[in-house]
Amino acid sequence: MSTLIDSKHFPIKFLPEGGVVSPLGFLAGSARGEIKSFGDDVALILAVNSATAAAVFTRNLVKAAPVLVCADHLQSAQSRAVIINAGNANCCTGEQGLRDAKKMCELAALKLNCHPREVLVCSTGIIGHALSMGKIESALAQLNVSSDAEQNEKVARAVMTTDTRPKFCAASCQIGGKTVTVGGLIKGVGMIGPDMGPFQPSAPHATLLGVLTTDAVVEKVWLQAELERVVERSLNSVTVDGDTSTNDTAILLASGASDVRVGNGNVENDEQFRALLETVCIHLAREVARDGEGATKIIAISVLGAQSEDDAKSVAMTIANSPLVKTALFGNDPNWGRIAAAAGRSGAHFRAQNLGIKLGAVEVFKNGEPTDFDVAQAEAALKNEEVEIEVSLGEGEHRWTAWTCDFSYDYVKINAEYHT
Amino acid sequence: MSTLIDSKHFPIKFLPEGGVVSPLGFLAGSARGEIKSFGDDVALILAVNSATAAAVFTRNLVKAAPVLVCADHLQSAQSRAVIINAGNANCCTGEQGLRDAKKMCELAALKLNCHPREVLVCSTGIIGHALSMGKIESALAQLNVSSDAEQNEKVARAVMTTDTRPKFCAASCQIGGKTVTVGGLIKGVGMIGPDMGPFQPSAPHATLLGVLTTDAVVEKVWLQAELERVVERSLNSVTVDGDTSTNDTAILLASGASDVRVGNGNVENDEQFRALLETVCIHLAREVARDGEGATKIIAISVLGAQSEDDAKSVAMTIANSPLVKTALFGNDPNWGRIAAAAGRSGAHFRAQNLGIKLGAVEVFKNGEPTDFDVAQAEAALKNEEVEIEVSLGEGEHRWTAWTCDFSYDYVKINAEYHT
Repeated sequence: MSTLIDSKHFPIKFLPEGGVVSPLGFLAGSARGEIKSFGDDVALILAVNSATAAAVFTRNLVKAAPVLVCADHLQSAQSRAVIINAGNANCCTGEQGLRDAKKMCELAALKLNCHPREVLVCSTGIIGHALSMGKIESALAQLNVSSDAEQNEKVARAVMTTDTRPKFCAASCQIGGKTVTVGGLIKGVGMIGPDMGPFQPSAPHATLLGVLTTDAVVEKVWLQAELERVVERSLNSVTVDGDTSTNDTAILLASGASDVRVGNGNVENDEQFRALLETVCIHLAREVARDGEGATKIIAISVLGAQSEDDAKSVAMTIANSPLVKTALFGNDPNWGRIAAAAGRSGAHFRAQNLGIKLGAVEVFKNGEPTDFDVAQAEAALKNEEVEIEVSLGEGEHRWTAWTCDFSYDYVKINAEYHT
Repeated sequence: MSTLIDSKHFPIKFLPEGGVVSPLGFLAGSARGEIKSFGDDVALILAVNSATAAAVFTRNLVKAAPVLVCADHLQSAQSRAVIINAGNANCCTGEQGLRDAKKMCELAALKLNCHPREVLVCSTGIIGHALSMGKIESALAQLNVSSDAEQNEKVARAVMTTDTRPKFCAASCQIGGKTVTVGGLIKGVGMIGPDMGPFQPSAPHATLLGVLTTDAVVEKVWLQAELERVVERSLNSVTVDGDTSTNDTAILLASGASDVRVGNGNVENDEQFRALLETVCIHLAREVARDGEGATKIIAISVLGAQSEDDAKSVAMTIANSPLVKTALFGNDPNWGRIAAAAGRSGAHFRAQNLGIKLGAVEVFKNGEPTDFDVAQAEAALKNEEVEIEVSLGEGEHRWTAWTCDFSYDYVKINAEYHT
């Protein structure tokens, strides 16, 4: 890492071993409550003083208790902390589940000496089992927080379920001559088909949970709008199995400690902040695809030339979720007909005679006709750890990129053997 | 087979070893054109005189050449035959593909001494490769047709691609004191997520192909409407991977040879015929799920209490297509949370507090709360060759049943190794 990424304005720089405590004004820590079979499983991420919070939640009709409680607590003007447990989703747990999600906030508030409504809550793990508050309490009793860089990995590891590795990063840039930083962690490798937006009431295992932190100074309403906008092209554009979880949540906390104000009408500064936030969110989204259950490679699907953004996204996501495309990619099989078929069932408008498909740099289909491509070259393109697929619709100027992984024997193994 | 099935009116009886030549007035045969690696791969099913035809086609935007030609030829008042090849889908083959699909009809017409527009055509197999007309011609030269019962299996076998067994059946009932019969064959075990309707022009591998025959006397317009209605609750309600093919086609030919007239205003007779057609189509749909790529079991998902038929179908199909549900079922894991999560992302309206789930006879979730069910009993229910899942939404009176199969190591194997 520590690579320089191009942005429209200033360079964005990844911070080595960066994560949620990289921005100024944040602490984090984790401990073991014996909820999952090994390792820490309760994490706390908090602002030293207080933070402005924004969040997006699963649009699944079946929503876990922590989603309901978190959405309610988000209404507080200021937030102090996020408590997360892994190993139990506290979902489909009825009234008791709601009481328990609130209780988690109360227990954290007691430790932090703040109001329970200033605590946000997330859970991930098995559905339909009561979450023991005794375990949460015992973990919190042992839990120490700090701003040491080692906490970036530690908390990212504590929230893992079937994840094979902790996923976290941070990046900085200059805005108005001062440094502003966004850090984040993410977990989730299965039941990944996030569709998160502002909370919509109505009433639902691995799950996508993301916590982002920044030291920018920002108003709550603007922060919420920015998070929604950026999530759509990052976390909502990654899929492993298309199974939108009951617990998906992404929270962004802004401490204001950098003294860099954004969202106050300076378009250039706002765009720079958006580019920073998007860079971190796309990095984390790609990490989810790379660590997808059973994945041997990450696949980036770019759709160009769509009539609308919705059409571009539909085509990209339908291909990204197609079991036939994902198994062909596992087999390094340049079976582009499966890509064409998935595009055609996506619901997006295009004419088959304009369709084009590239596997890496190899053009396999052009204007509705197969090309005379070199099969060995196409197979070689699919053997990369990162495969790029480009689909051009020839209907307009809109584009979208989705990230997914291949579908392997291990996906079946993990999911047929991850018993209740 | 030869079981008596309850219908609203008269008993429907399956005919042992029945198939497309069971109804009066039909002949069939197959031969090898060396398009696939072994066995017969060209089949011809024809009416002795002529037939009234109805058909539904894939709604995928990318439609194979034979779909386009078949839809055009369906406009003829009468049809004589259906020619089918397996091993090559003649899809994404541009202008040459269209010429070849027409040529197949011309070659069959020449043999049968009829007009090419009286011949319907279907292809299934790999996408994006030219289909050799020399192979079709050589197969037709060797092909003999007859009404011998052995042709039922022979033609059903000739149209197979990754299918492990031929799928065919026939059933009869009495209408107005006379016997009327519906026979059929079907192929397809992968790229199965049919969404067939009346042909819609616009322009896209295993594929679902079905040919149905009946000796009822019936008008073309009524036959088309009945086929569309019955397909929706049968062939369009089976899924293996949700990948709607570019070639899906179901054709129904009516010879009139039974002298039993339907569709002329006798409601009771019409309902009886519909029950007969539906019985055959549901039997064939279930055969597709049972032979789904890598399947170890068939899963029937019934959704009750929906606000609308569309809602009931959305919930049933979303569960049927969920990789997490299908892998859990492969592992005999009563992980009902995955079922609840799939229902919640289906787009259908319901309140999580009304949701109920049964695995076989075991109620695992009721009114939004987990039950204290016996895990061993639930696991036992999942070990059956046929698993029944019931989901009740508690919102209305509408219901839908979808059929699928589990998702096994062999699914990955078949699809990662079935190279172009």
